[in-house]
Amino acid sequence: MTFAPVPLRATLAAVAGGAAPERSIRARLSAIHADDPALRAFHALSPDLRPAFAATGPLAGVSLGVKDIIDTADMPTAYGSPIHAGHRPAADASVVAMARMKGAAIIGKTETCPFAFLDPAPTRNAVDPAHTPGGSSAGSAAAVAAGLCEVALGTQTAGSVLRPAAFNGVCGYKPSFRLLPTVGVKPFAWTLDTLGVFAAGVADAALFAALLTGRDLAVPETPAAPHIGVYRSAIDGEMSAAMAEAVERAARAAERAGARVTIVEEPEALARGRDAQGPIQLHEGALALLHERRAHADDLGPRLSAALDEGAAIVPERYDECRRLARIARRTAATLFESVDALLLPAAPGAAPRSRDTTGSPVFNKLWTLTGNPAVAVPGLLDPAGMPLGIQVVARFGRDRVALEAAAFVEAALRRFEA
Amino acid sequence: MTFAPVPLRATLAAVAGGAAPERSIRARLSAIHADDPALRAFHALSPDLRPAFAATGPLAGVSLGVKDIIDTADMPTAYGSPIHAGHRPAADASVVAMARMKGAAIIGKTETCPFAFLDPAPTRNAVDPAHTPGGSSAGSAAAVAAGLCEVALGTQTAGSVLRPAAFNGVCGYKPSFRLLPTVGVKPFAWTLDTLGVFAAGVADAALFAALLTGRDLAVPETPAAPHIGVYRSAIDGEMSAAMAEAVERAARAAERAGARVTIVEEPEALARGRDAQGPIQLHEGALALLHERRAHADDLGPRLSAALDEGAAIVPERYDECRRLARIARRTAATLFESVDALLLPAAPGAAPRSRDTTGSPVFNKLWTLTGNPAVAVPGLLDPAGMPLGIQVVARFGRDRVALEAAAFVEAALRRFEA
Repeated sequence: MTFAPVPLRATLAAVAGGAAPERSIRARLSAIHADDPALRAFHALSPDLRPAFAATGPLAGVSLGVKDIIDTADMPTAYGSPIHAGHRPAADASVVAMARMKGAAIIGKTETCPFAFLDPAPTRNAVDPAHTPGGSSAGSAAAVAAGLCEVALGTQTAGSVLRPAAFNGVCGYKPSFRLLPTVGVKPFAWTLDTLGVFAAGVADAALFAALLTGRDLAVPETPAAPHIGVYRSAIDGEMSAAMAEAVERAARAAERAGARVTIVEEPEALARGRDAQGPIQLHEGALALLHERRAHADDLGPRLSAALDEGAAIVPERYDECRRLARIARRTAATLFESVDALLLPAAPGAAPRSRDTTGSPVFNKLWTLTGNPAVAVPGLLDPAGMPLGIQVVARFGRDRVALEAAAFVEAALRRFEA
Repeated sequence: MTFAPVPLRATLAAVAGGAAPERSIRARLSAIHADDPALRAFHALSPDLRPAFAATGPLAGVSLGVKDIIDTADMPTAYGSPIHAGHRPAADASVVAMARMKGAAIIGKTETCPFAFLDPAPTRNAVDPAHTPGGSSAGSAAAVAAGLCEVALGTQTAGSVLRPAAFNGVCGYKPSFRLLPTVGVKPFAWTLDTLGVFAAGVADAALFAALLTGRDLAVPETPAAPHIGVYRSAIDGEMSAAMAEAVERAARAAERAGARVTIVEEPEALARGRDAQGPIQLHEGALALLHERRAHADDLGPRLSAALDEGAAIVPERYDECRRLARIARRTAATLFESVDALLLPAAPGAAPRSRDTTGSPVFNKLWTLTGNPAVAVPGLLDPAGMPLGIQVVARFGRDRVALEAAAFVEAALRRFEA
């Protein structure tokens, strides 16, 4: 199986140099036809790319994969579930309409776990098909990793952007909560659901977000050296030995490249926030998917079905208490960035598990989804078996540019000192 | 035209006394068939009420009207727009599924301004058809006012629950932001859109919300006397003379009934918050409706079309600054409730304008939608021409029970001293 992401910047440079948008889009289509029968990253392909061939915006020539829980008016959107097989939404999701407006080709819908939960999608890991690609944005991560599209959209409610990015060795960028509008994204938990971006590397993800939103998010060619806090938390025991070493290697590489690196101990309020994420997700999920739960209980998927039963049993008082802990965690998280620019921690407990019955654990992602802080999975490290080890850079809420620049700095340091 | 709301509590008492749910539902259907051809509150009726006739939950026998921007799997949902005529959603909105689960009959979809903005719906005012019913939840307010259903759901992004409730002389209750899940509600502005409830009176709205959510929201038979702050703000000059007098009468009635009544002057931060609501609504609206704006620009409606053009011109930096003002307003609003239990102010500048080319002004509602505070339109006062004058009770964020109990107290005081 191939493992060759196509950098967004390469495609944009080709188009800027006079290449027709059609050329790069057709190259991605060829790759899809060659590799996707085995990879299974795509659920559906665009029925008509002619408007994209003729596009002129800043994303002209760029192929975008869209996770199938995100509505598209020209393609079926099944939310990864047999319950909604063949469903055709009335409108494009906002983020899809934004991408089209900027000239991107919505090349296809990528596979997702049903309703973006934990029951595995059919997608294979792009590096080694015996391993999980992660979830729930499995198709988006694998498609970018295999070079089937330059960029892809996913969503994260617990760890569904950072984890599959880490497992497939690409960049996954989860913006600050609400930076990308979730209108037209099938909701699971409305206080957590966050749209994110997959790309070959950090600079590509940042540039895509900048061009999509018109915000100042692109990172400079030479990122400034940040003050990095290596985050020590109550769950560090869940890291594999290889991941613990990877975080250490990333910290040392950043230091050698000029970053100041210190240790940040997890405040108790953040440990409590992490524990509150689960009940919030499941209580909201049981309401968000109440129609499906009442009308199609047998087709939900086993993990989702059990989780929604659990969520339905959480009374409003417990939910309100968890939301209070979330607010405290959010305020506490802000204080960490009074002393450092960015935190460094694992994007997942280790490399992708060698199994297709699991999507791996979101335990290192849940807290930052709850607090809404921008988080970036940085590729570049491998375990002894050659599987990617993704590390995570987190910055202050609303400081997405800081998160992306610090992540780009770490990525460059890894290329320089770990190649 | 009739003007006889049916109290929820009367229907629930009848069912508790042994009446079949079918009986009350059929009575509402008869009223719809008699009065709706002139009133035009309903856009579509349920194709099959047999499951509701046999329902057993706490809302069995209760007919619920659902604003047509709220998804229903068994009825078309056109979002008030020709663009989506005949659209059939894949799932019920969460709040619809919740109501069905509790036994309510989803009797029909109520008319709304297109995409819940300002272009008028076909509905007439239930008190005098020459006047606007308000908007955008026009059908829900008029349907409840005319006794076509006991309760109805609407949404408020600027003033679309409180204002039509006031204009039709019923209770409109806008809960704290996110208390009712907006999953399956067509978004306009994701930081503002709030589901709300219409009912004959405050106790009915509170009881419905309590039964729907399982939260402690029902008000006692004899509400406790609150400390009320009459809210004096920068926009008081926009009140009609009759409305200024109505607020005064309500304050005096509450005082005679035992409430402590003082004056609360609007902090500058809240005036600035009110001014920030518009740019936030329009910037988010231009993204939320980007698909419709790009594919169906000519069918949006004139006011919406102009507003979305305005929203699309608002750059992210200005939007972010308005969101910052909103956060400050939210914190400042909380401080007001350190000295009073609830604020009293108009729910609209005056009675419903005698016109069907406008839906009236949301100026007295925008701030509290922005801050997310619970707000209740209290019926009971009339202008010299017999048109309803709705007043508004606002409480601290998350203290919906306080808002509802204070509103019920004011409502009772008006019945006692203004009848």
